[in-house]
Amino acid sequence: MIKAAIVGYGNIGRFALEALDKAPDMECAGIVRRSGSAEGIPELQGRRVCSDIRELGKVDVAILSTPSRKVQENAQKYLAMGICTVDSFDIHSEIWNLRTALDRSAKEGRAASIISAGWDPGTDSVIRALLSGMAPQGVTYTNFGPGRSMGHSVVAKSVPGVRDALSMTLPAGKGVHDRKVYVELEPGADFEAVSAAIKSDPYFVNDRTDVEQVPSVEAVNSLMHGVNLVREGASGITEGQKMEFNMRINNPALTGQVLVMAARAVVKQAPGCYTMIEVPLIDYLPGDRESLVRSLV
Amino acid sequence: MIKAAIVGYGNIGRFALEALDKAPDMECAGIVRRSGSAEGIPELQGRRVCSDIRELGKVDVAILSTPSRKVQENAQKYLAMGICTVDSFDIHSEIWNLRTALDRSAKEGRAASIISAGWDPGTDSVIRALLSGMAPQGVTYTNFGPGRSMGHSVVAKSVPGVRDALSMTLPAGKGVHDRKVYVELEPGADFEAVSAAIKSDPYFVNDRTDVEQVPSVEAVNSLMHGVNLVREGASGITEGQKMEFNMRINNPALTGQVLVMAARAVVKQAPGCYTMIEVPLIDYLPGDRESLVRSLV
Repeated sequence: MIKAAIVGYGNIGRFALEALDKAPDMECAGIVRRSGSAEGIPELQGRRVCSDIRELGKVDVAILSTPSRKVQENAQKYLAMGICTVDSFDIHSEIWNLRTALDRSAKEGRAASIISAGWDPGTDSVIRALLSGMAPQGVTYTNFGPGRSMGHSVVAKSVPGVRDALSMTLPAGKGVHDRKVYVELEPGADFEAVSAAIKSDPYFVNDRTDVEQVPSVEAVNSLMHGVNLVREGASGITEGQKMEFNMRINNPALTGQVLVMAARAVVKQAPGCYTMIEVPLIDYLPGDRESLVRSLV
Repeated sequence: MIKAAIVGYGNIGRFALEALDKAPDMECAGIVRRSGSAEGIPELQGRRVCSDIRELGKVDVAILSTPSRKVQENAQKYLAMGICTVDSFDIHSEIWNLRTALDRSAKEGRAASIISAGWDPGTDSVIRALLSGMAPQGVTYTNFGPGRSMGHSVVAKSVPGVRDALSMTLPAGKGVHDRKVYVELEPGADFEAVSAAIKSDPYFVNDRTDVEQVPSVEAVNSLMHGVNLVREGASGITEGQKMEFNMRINNPALTGQVLVMAARAVVKQAPGCYTMIEVPLIDYLPGDRESLVRSLV
């Protein structure tokens, strides 16, 4: 059994724990939280919860369910202890730099790390890599949503007069996205002023953005998200090859599951840092090689 | 540059050669044919064509574009020479046995082999593996077509009174397939008798089969094929995750391209035999690791 610890217990951590409990070949060594306490969290009662992973005894892999900005620091700490790490770091432009930094730390600690193991980056990256090989000359469009953008929601919420906000990413096709922002206002706030402030923010100014006032943001909120990933191109010199991947998913549930897939795979890798496309797919799956090949190939 | 030889020059070999010519990191060492001759094939004029691969000098990988039944014998011959092999062996029930046999041959020859590198088995297998990891509890449906089934066409063509036949696989949903058979008859043949003979053949008797007489099978023929691969299941304990892969492709063009992807990957593997899900995706792609991670992840 692979012993995994969950580090951070927000939305992703909660779903990662559920996926870990369902994995036939893994067990949860415990949950690491800054508070070191399970107080106020009913489903953590009876679990080992601590503030320092060393209290958990032998841990093979740390599942980092912390914000992207905290990933490097946390991963380096665990890799130095010889504990493998996985994360769903999602700042696309910084992935290579993170990989470079963690590759060094991982080799020094004689452990392995799989970074950006969510759905985008993550499983969508796997699809993009596969499709680019199948039709090497061509274009890929990744269309997200409809679904909540955490970053944009936070920005909208920070506008004066806004009590709560939800920014939805809406696919407009060919990789272009529109935004729909639902706002719940403080008493006396001016909707037109709030709407103008949101639309002129650098996060929104380049996108077609619609702002709507609602009595309750909670009432329109959802964890569902999706993607439509399209590639059209040529295999060899034969044009007109068309491939498409669609999914509609509970966003943190899929992210938690992918983190668990990566946690299973990472303990099988040589020391170093990897993105998902650098690891054989079979390593992400439970079960023996023969059964997997027989049932999937 | 990876030096690849094409072994067999039928439909797949021709498209594999086109894909090979387009690969920036590979070159064609030559074409191996039983006849050893390019006679009557305009596009092979000026190419090195021979009956024995040893005439081509150093070859890194042999791309086997021969029928599935010939794969094991051919692969073992080349692996014994230390030449890597790739093939698109498509008899699903025999893949594990082929892998076992070639794994031994590959290790003895200190070469590597990637088998069943087409689109199903092949790239569809990669998708199935990924989706089964993303929603471990669930069901996958693979719906093929519309597109030609070679095996069924051959059976229909062998019925007395049939001059030419084309059997199309039509997706009926949830992994069930119907068949539509176009027949061109010999003069004086009885259509009703032909239709009954086809429908009662073991290849067709369990499927809903429609037979239609046409003046020319050539006129309704096409190289296009497709797949709709659906998985619905749970990530962790969260039900309702839905993922779908669709493609519409020129069948031999995609198979030829996937063989070239596999040929690029196989030379990077340790001695042994692999299916596509056992090799990191990045190995199938041209270019340096940093560029690939930056553009795809």
